Amino acid sequence: MNIEKLMQGVSAGDRRALAQAITLVESSRADHRVMATALLDGLRPLQRQALRIGLSGTPGVGKSTFIEAFGCMLTAAGLRVAVLAVDPSSTRSGGSILGDKTRMDLLSRDPNAFIRPSPSQTHLGGVARRTREAVGLCEGAGFDIVLIETVGVGQSETVVAQISDLFVLLLAPAGGDELQGVKRGIMEIADLVLINKADGDLVAPATRACADYAGALRLMRKREQDPDGFPKAMLVSALTQVGLAAAWDEMTALSDWRRKVGHFAHHRAVQARYWFEQEVRQGLLEGLQRSEVRSAMAQAGCAVERGDLTPESAAQGILKTLLDRGPAQD
Amino acid sequence: MNIEKLMQGVSAGDRRALAQAITLVESSRADHRVMATALLDGLRPLQRQALRIGLSGTPGVGKSTFIEAFGCMLTAAGLRVAVLAVDPSSTRSGGSILGDKTRMDLLSRDPNAFIRPSPSQTHLGGVARRTREAVGLCEGAGFDIVLIETVGVGQSETVVAQISDLFVLLLAPAGGDELQGVKRGIMEIADLVLINKADGDLVAPATRACADYAGALRLMRKREQDPDGFPKAMLVSALTQVGLAAAWDEMTALSDWRRKVGHFAHHRAVQARYWFEQEVRQGLLEGLQRSEVRSAMAQAGCAVERGDLTPESAAQGILKTLLDRGPAQD
Repeated sequence: MNIEKLMQGVSAGDRRALAQAITLVESSRADHRVMATALLDGLRPLQRQALRIGLSGTPGVGKSTFIEAFGCMLTAAGLRVAVLAVDPSSTRSGGSILGDKTRMDLLSRDPNAFIRPSPSQTHLGGVARRTREAVGLCEGAGFDIVLIETVGVGQSETVVAQISDLFVLLLAPAGGDELQGVKRGIMEIADLVLINKADGDLVAPATRACADYAGALRLMRKREQDPDGFPKAMLVSALTQVGLAAAWDEMTALSDWRRKVGHFAHHRAVQARYWFEQEVRQGLLEGLQRSEVRSAMAQAGCAVERGDLTPESAAQGILKTLLDRGPAQD
Repeated sequence: MNIEKLMQGVSAGDRRALAQAITLVESSRADHRVMATALLDGLRPLQRQALRIGLSGTPGVGKSTFIEAFGCMLTAAGLRVAVLAVDPSSTRSGGSILGDKTRMDLLSRDPNAFIRPSPSQTHLGGVARRTREAVGLCEGAGFDIVLIETVGVGQSETVVAQISDLFVLLLAPAGGDELQGVKRGIMEIADLVLINKADGDLVAPATRACADYAGALRLMRKREQDPDGFPKAMLVSALTQVGLAAAWDEMTALSDWRRKVGHFAHHRAVQARYWFEQEVRQGLLEGLQRSEVRSAMAQAGCAVERGDLTPESAAQGILKTLLDRGPAQD
């Protein structure tokens, strides 16, 4: 693989080169990792920056329809839109969300759009790293908007929120008791709550749900980085395309404000530090997978099972060989 | 502190010595850790073993009343009973469950019983280690039964299940929809489900709930280590003491079976290995708290925030100093 040529393709905005580059960052092969790092480092001096929008919603809420309609609206306005998926559950299905591009037929054929399904990954840490690097590639390829979609299984919303500049929660038109069903944590990280399917018979329940969510959001502590009125609940219909332009206006208003008060850059700095600390933790635990450590662990584990060693003293022995090797050699 | 004297006191079954020893294992001071390890190592040759019973139930289900009645029944039968609490939520309250021994007035005054509230701990790992060591001390003190109570917040049931020989779930007399409220995970680890408050007006709903839970348990995969009929749902009333003897009969029947087929010892061996691996993971992450590592992390973190280093390359640098120090020196 010619990294120089790939870099040229990506920076020229070529979608095939971008797809190839993302495949490269998804690989865990050591030589691929070296190339991926070189590629990302080579793109950084371009200093291209997209607006990163995290989008979460439970299955059935109409995420694909929303992304199709919202994405086409943005490309029609001259913006280039990339869509990435974070789906830790795709380990089994091989990419259950966005796996089928035909669900976004118009957007996937749009030359100003790029859609990438979630890869099969064994753990959330791997998905997070790959997604951050894929976002970097999309920015290097000159995309204006990167939509990062998640179904919100387990911790994936937290991952997406820590990658995004804005976090949008898409909800079904049901309020009252249903409000309880929404995880408290996700309401707290949402900048914008969009109640979808506000069309036909569902206008009335969607309006009630919107009022309920707006009330719930008002009860939450106002965040200092936000202008008045945020986080906000709004009605949209991906089907009839009602409310999409208004939702986009709110997103740009919020990100413009955050740029003005300096929060936008600060937020990215905090995210970078978070990922640094996560990478260290994950790297430490991955150290346990090295073959010599695994065999030492297996041996000590057997002694613990036999009762020859307590769990604590066996663990101390392993930690000693892992961490306390005397002064650094390099 | 005289460890020799403390060990004599604990092994003689003295409750004040046991309380003092548990305070010692709860301490994180380095010299206390050394003494705690010496104490536990000194007690191991006695090879005393209690039946460790994990007990979980949501607040209001009558756990205290149950433990009081069940514990008094066991001490009346000549058994010595220790009660320990695992309550990660007690960080704030300073021990919200079992904090008030007067809730178990009879049992706490019983010379054959020992009740220990949950300590204030900052993390579940610390609670788990302390509880395992406290169980070891209670066994060294010759107790026949160790009841390990948890409110079931977060991951605490998993901790208790990984310490216990048997896991008992105490439930309120409500079925149908309420069934949905029980976390699926906890039903899967329960050996015995006890529907409490089967007295007065609640006999009928408790009976229906018991049938519902029995049905739910039948739907679950039978575990190979269990005899026919387990996991089992039963009616009890801690208030009128109905069903307590029958519940105890089932517990002894199950543990006798497991001893006979060899699963009892095997289960403890698997638990010991689990805790060994947990200790290694936790110890690795605690390595990040060492002062020189913290200052290196802070420095690298600032470089990441400024954008001078990517999260990945900064993490690689830290991991290199933590893990790749060349061949071991000792």
